Amino acid sequence: MSHPYKELQEQAYLANMQLPALGLVLFTFGNVSVADHNAGVFAIKPSGVPYDLLSPEKMVIVDFDANNVTNNGRPSSDTKTHAVLYKHWAHVGGIVHTHSTYATAWAQAQRDIPIYGTTHADHLTCDVPCAPPMHDDMIKGNYEHETGFQIMNCLNERKLSYEEIEMILVGNHAPFTWGKTADKAVYNAAVLEEVARMAYLTETIRPACPRLKDSLIKKHFERKHGPDSYYGQQ
Amino acid sequence: MSHPYKELQEQAYLANMQLPALGLVLFTFGNVSVADHNAGVFAIKPSGVPYDLLSPEKMVIVDFDANNVTNNGRPSSDTKTHAVLYKHWAHVGGIVHTHSTYATAWAQAQRDIPIYGTTHADHLTCDVPCAPPMHDDMIKGNYEHETGFQIMNCLNERKLSYEEIEMILVGNHAPFTWGKTADKAVYNAAVLEEVARMAYLTETIRPACPRLKDSLIKKHFERKHGPDSYYGQQ
Amino acid sequence: MSHPYKELQEQAYLANMQLPALGLVLFTFGNVSVADHNAGVFAIKPSGVPYDLLSPEKMVIVDFDANNVTNNGRPSSDTKTHAVLYKHWAHVGGIVHTHSTYATAWAQAQRDIPIYGTTHADHLTCDVPCAPPMHDDMIKGNYEHETGFQIMNCLNERKLSYEEIEMILVGNHAPFTWGKTADKAVYNAAVLEEVARMAYLTETIRPACPRLKDSLIKKHFERKHGPDSYYGQQ
Amino acid sequence: MSHPYKELQEQAYLANMQLPALGLVLFTFGNVSVADHNAGVFAIKPSGVPYDLLSPEKMVIVDFDANNVTNNGRPSSDTKTHAVLYKHWAHVGGIVHTHSTYATAWAQAQRDIPIYGTTHADHLTCDVPCAPPMHDDMIKGNYEHETGFQIMNCLNERKLSYEEIEMILVGNHAPFTWGKTADKAVYNAAVLEEVARMAYLTETIRPACPRLKDSLIKKHFERKHGPDSYYGQQ
Repeated sequence: MSHPYKELQEQAYLANMQLPALGLVLFTFGNVSVADHNAGVFAIKPSGVPYDLLSPEKMVIVDFDANNVTNNGRPSSDTKTHAVLYKHWAHVGGIVHTHSTYATAWAQAQRDIPIYGTTHADHLTCDVPCAPPMHDDMIKGNYEHETGFQIMNCLNERKLSYEEIEMILVGNHAPFTWGKTADKAVYNAAVLEEVARMAYLTETIRPACPRLKDSLIKKHFERKHGPDSYYGQQ
Repeated sequence: MSHPYKELQEQAYLANMQLPALGLVLFTFGNVSVADHNAGVFAIKPSGVPYDLLSPEKMVIVDFDANNVTNNGRPSSDTKTHAVLYKHWAHVGGIVHTHSTYATAWAQAQRDIPIYGTTHADHLTCDVPCAPPMHDDMIKGNYEHETGFQIMNCLNERKLSYEEIEMILVGNHAPFTWGKTADKAVYNAAVLEEVARMAYLTETIRPACPRLKDSLIKKHFERKHGPDSYYGQQ
Repeated sequence: MSHPYKELQEQAYLANMQLPALGLVLFTFGNVSVADHNAGVFAIKPSGVPYDLLSPEKMVIVDFDANNVTNNGRPSSDTKTHAVLYKHWAHVGGIVHTHSTYATAWAQAQRDIPIYGTTHADHLTCDVPCAPPMHDDMIKGNYEHETGFQIMNCLNERKLSYEEIEMILVGNHAPFTWGKTADKAVYNAAVLEEVARMAYLTETIRPACPRLKDSLIKKHFERKHGPDSYYGQQ
Repeated sequence: MSHPYKELQEQAYLANMQLPALGLVLFTFGNVSVADHNAGVFAIKPSGVPYDLLSPEKMVIVDFDANNVTNNGRPSSDTKTHAVLYKHWAHVGGIVHTHSTYATAWAQAQRDIPIYGTTHADHLTCDVPCAPPMHDDMIKGNYEHETGFQIMNCLNERKLSYEEIEMILVGNHAPFTWGKTADKAVYNAAVLEEVARMAYLTETIRPACPRLKDSLIKKHFERKHGPDSYYGQQ
């Protein structure tokens, strides 16, 4: 076990342990990573290890080309997706992948989550994008690596910035979220699940419900995120 | 920290802590205030502070023009809505705002919650009103202040008294509830969420379900609230 | 406090406390009673008292004409319904009333719960009956007393025995369940809620789903209840 | 109490206790068995005994012809189904039966659960099969014994191997799952419930949703189960 990564492992451990506490994972269906861009590595959950058996020193250190640095176990099977995103996104400090129930159902339906209310607009100004399923040759090839590109391509095609839009659904699969820190990425995973649930209920209550109007989207997002934001403590 | 408001802060703290206990909030998506009409102030949750980090002395004291009296932090971003309601509603002692899941879904659908059963009629004699989304100029202007007027205007247009109808949905946004005390306002927030959930299920079980008939509405409301009520201890 | 009823109060207290533990009540929306047919009385939850403030000595003793025997508080507002049922049903030892979410939604929709599977057939051999809402003059009159007759009339019209069918929905209102003991009545309340939830999901998965066929209804009911039953310990 | 079965009973006890912990059972609506193929017996939950009253020594030992070996109580009423499956499936070490809510709703609807996403494909490569309800003469006869054959026939007709497909719905009834160990069978029961819930939500979000494409089914299953699997620790 390498000592230089002790703090990173501790952070990754604490972030991972939030997933079951927030009800976002069944068994091992999820993982969190925390990056150190200066060192060019990230710490990630070991593959298939139940949450109640995790400990900081079991977190695996991987570089941005997905090489296992610490060799203290096999990292999450989704590691290459994390690696490629960190390699391209310099300002992302944490990434979360879950199979949370409602967000995954939208991904399975291959639908964007429409922006129906201010709970959604408090966090992002557009529908939650759903990246289309990959082409067969990408699936058969370097699947998890390509998943990272599928995510980045989807944002690029829609002219969305990863620094503004911190969540996505991968079609047929499940959600990924990220943020400047791992805590923010975990927060986004829980917000996404709640937004997905509310949108599900909204469409049942009112089929063909109209989206939130632009003025409300702008107002709510800027309350929390604009230069004149007035949410939270200073 | 001003000592004169110690009791008010304590009340606001206890009322706020009921929201996570009742499952009505995710993270910081909610707030409770408690008013002292003699002193012309109310205590409200500080903005963006997680519930498990709250304490009585962190509750911010604000006057009915939304001026920060204690300056011990930034009050909830919804503070101006609370202020304007207290200013106009002399008999309201507590106000609650949440983004509870089912009530928010009805708000997002911009629909009143139909009165389908006695659980609803035990608490109010009409559909739960949903105020329409505001005009764009109101949203761009003093948004939270205008939200208070949007609530009052909706009640006025429907000739409803805030002393009888203690809950409302703000279209596209989420619910507000109130009461003579903060405890009653929190109680109303939980009742609204349950009524919203039951109405959701009822419409799925029977689309175009008829509303409760007048005789049952009257009977159930008067059991609990009329001059000859016989619910509860004397 | 009369000592002769100490045991009955203890039983009623324990049975009432099962309702929140089973997730069947919000606040005070439910009550359990336990009858002593030899003494001609039953113990019932006091009206409007939160479950966490209950204690055995607060249980109110009432006779089968709904007279308050112990005068240690006001009994549940539904007391007259319990009284009239005990008066007519000699073999019922406990009655439960809740506003549990799914069962209440079916009651609000004024629909019987169709028998779709063996979970239902393990407990009763027909749809869960939904009694129609009462006539206006009955509602305006002795409402809770008439509710008891509404329940009994519904069973009689369908030629159902209260000793075989231990649960019913009162249209627009909520469920009542009963049994030889209060424990059985509480058990039935939880089973009804689960059966109501499963039927709700079944109809969404398959609209116009066929009912369970007679051979399976008979088999499952007799496994648990027939003369040759082989469920449970001997 | 026979000492030779002490370990088997302990395993069965621990496996059974996982069902309430995972939220898969109400009251006694479920059971787990653990087989010892060398000894030709299995340990199974006693019939109708609440989970909080279970202990290892109450587990009943039964042989593969469903004879009670230990006579320390009556085994689960579903025992003959377990027995016949163990008799024919040499590589199954544990079997689970529950009435978990979403899986049971699909069984009541008599529908296979379509494979809509990778959560499903991580565990099996086809729809979760729903065996049709049995013919009336089989129901009237040796019902639980025939249920085992109904399960095996369904797999055979679809050319599915019990070593690859470890879960099934019995039409109108509820799910059965199995595995090389009882722990795996319990794991499968929880996975099935989650897959059933996600499929339910997916169909509501997008009626007539397409199934997962073959390349993704293959990729996800082989990540976890193929000869080149890279999920979990080595």
